[in-house]
Amino acid sequence: MTAETTEKASPAPRRRTTRRTLVQGALAAPIAAAPAGAQPSPAAAPPLAAGLPGRGGPAYKPAFVPHGYPEKTADLGEVTMNYVVAGSPSRPALLLIPGQTESWWGYEAAIKLLEADFQVYAVDLRGQGRSTWTAGRYTLDNMGNDLVRFIATVIKRPVVTSGCSSGGVLSCWLSAYAMPGQLRGAIYEDPPLFASELTPAFGPSVRQTIVGPIFQRFAAYLGNQWSVGAYASMGGGMGGPAEPPQNIKEYDPEWGRAHYEGTVAASCPHDRMLAKVKVPVLLTHHGRTVDEATGRLVGALTDLQARQAGEIIRKAGQPFDYLSLPDAAHAMHAAQPERFATVVRGWVKKLPA
Amino acid sequence: MTAETTEKASPAPRRRTTRRTLVQGALAAPIAAAPAGAQPSPAAAPPLAAGLPGRGGPAYKPAFVPHGYPEKTADLGEVTMNYVVAGSPSRPALLLIPGQTESWWGYEAAIKLLEADFQVYAVDLRGQGRSTWTAGRYTLDNMGNDLVRFIATVIKRPVVTSGCSSGGVLSCWLSAYAMPGQLRGAIYEDPPLFASELTPAFGPSVRQTIVGPIFQRFAAYLGNQWSVGAYASMGGGMGGPAEPPQNIKEYDPEWGRAHYEGTVAASCPHDRMLAKVKVPVLLTHHGRTVDEATGRLVGALTDLQARQAGEIIRKAGQPFDYLSLPDAAHAMHAAQPERFATVVRGWVKKLPA
Repeated sequence: MTAETTEKASPAPRRRTTRRTLVQGALAAPIAAAPAGAQPSPAAAPPLAAGLPGRGGPAYKPAFVPHGYPEKTADLGEVTMNYVVAGSPSRPALLLIPGQTESWWGYEAAIKLLEADFQVYAVDLRGQGRSTWTAGRYTLDNMGNDLVRFIATVIKRPVVTSGCSSGGVLSCWLSAYAMPGQLRGAIYEDPPLFASELTPAFGPSVRQTIVGPIFQRFAAYLGNQWSVGAYASMGGGMGGPAEPPQNIKEYDPEWGRAHYEGTVAASCPHDRMLAKVKVPVLLTHHGRTVDEATGRLVGALTDLQARQAGEIIRKAGQPFDYLSLPDAAHAMHAAQPERFATVVRGWVKKLPA
Repeated sequence: MTAETTEKASPAPRRRTTRRTLVQGALAAPIAAAPAGAQPSPAAAPPLAAGLPGRGGPAYKPAFVPHGYPEKTADLGEVTMNYVVAGSPSRPALLLIPGQTESWWGYEAAIKLLEADFQVYAVDLRGQGRSTWTAGRYTLDNMGNDLVRFIATVIKRPVVTSGCSSGGVLSCWLSAYAMPGQLRGAIYEDPPLFASELTPAFGPSVRQTIVGPIFQRFAAYLGNQWSVGAYASMGGGMGGPAEPPQNIKEYDPEWGRAHYEGTVAASCPHDRMLAKVKVPVLLTHHGRTVDEATGRLVGALTDLQARQAGEIIRKAGQPFDYLSLPDAAHAMHAAQPERFATVVRGWVKKLPA
């Protein structure tokens, strides 16, 4: 890829990485996003916490925590989507899409930095945070169409999307399959293109990354909708305390099963999706190495996979910008929100209005 | 099911079944709909016939025929949907959804009978007729979301849906998963609920029906997007002439593969879909028997499957009407359009405005 660049926008980013985010980053990177950890606070759980649609299993104890932005909900048909919005409607619309094991509040620090320049929306996808859990129905196509409906009925104007990890794959999905005119451009923050598929056009597959086995353990020990809930027995990959971190409490472990078994993208091959991209794209590519002992990818996608993604998008006739940030955390928006905000602001400025 | 009724609305329906529809009915019932056959007329193919998006394979020779209603297209994002509309906007909106191996014009005779009472829309789904073919992406969720977008951007008001066969399953999908307020009610015309799944909650499965092996042969001998095109070698199940009937020419055989392999509903279990139904439903249940020699279902769904569907919908709090028409053809709307029109008119009258 001739246009490969390294970061220029943010020469001295202030690191906000905490011990918790480092631990989470180590266990759940690259596909599971690692939001800056809010402390679990079951006592603070508002009434909405109980009786949410689709929550199942006696092992599941919903425990939400308060945040700095008021949460709203939108009835989209199959799911009720939880979201926040900040900033003036006179500013360009920006939609932030969290990754696997993350909720909207993984973006809380980033929103504070971006709300002066954008009307910022951040959502919980199905199976995340306070949005509906949908047993048996976690696919890119269903999650993507939830966002199509959200843009059509809540945002109601053209938007720039930015998603991290699985949310980055969904930002790609929207750039390919949204309704005409819904998107102005799409940012893919360290997206596991190809590397979250079971049988990708370009390897490695999800089972050849360090997170594949973690997703398998989520599925087995926590169970769909926390039906098993054996968190303490799960062992390797979560380590640490007996109490799950807040982001895991808000996560339907069937997401992990859908990724490990490949059903999430079974009818959405990434190469075909990329060939349908219809708007300008920025892909930021964060830390990645290959474990010499196992051959497993420690990162969201390999250099070859990023290069193939770019070539397919350019063949589709769309501008493709690539930013290599090998020292960035997988969930840069949470670990280094100022660095993330600078990248987003700079890139969106280049887009046609 | 205590509310089981037999037809009262149309005591002496005029049969329009032709030899061709009987042949097609025998080979493609119950899941493949058998439209009254227009004669193939490659010479009449309009310019649109060539270069349609997603058409692939040297074996594919598009050959469309003229019809009695002007065809329009809508860009829905991923697919360009071909459709017709007839009748006054002052009348209630009715959306007709064809079944597998059918195109919109399977409803042509029915539209003539219904356009005085409804503003009638009839569509080609992805992989049918002149709508886009989408390799690798034939799922109920994707087809259903195409229709959600069509209702939102073309019909733009609440609608009653009526689909036959796989189109009946999509009418069910819409009754469960459409956006709030899009549907007034849903008619399922002989829908293979459960019986078009690979691992249904209530058997038989698609491979235990007479059409499963036919879909397998479509996939193998015609190939995805007609990439193989060995129609003459296909043998049993199509019989007859060396030239495919018009409806098969307009059909992407990957539909058959998606059904035989179960990917079409892999992330849309029918029992969970039925539990989400949000509007009144009419299910018409046509001819069905079990082949004593093989145990295979000759029909769209068994009595047990229809009963289970009704019980799940009623548990979801929605009115469920059941009409047993054991002497009706699978695609009654094509074979006996007057009988179909009478049933639709009568049922829609009962709905709240």
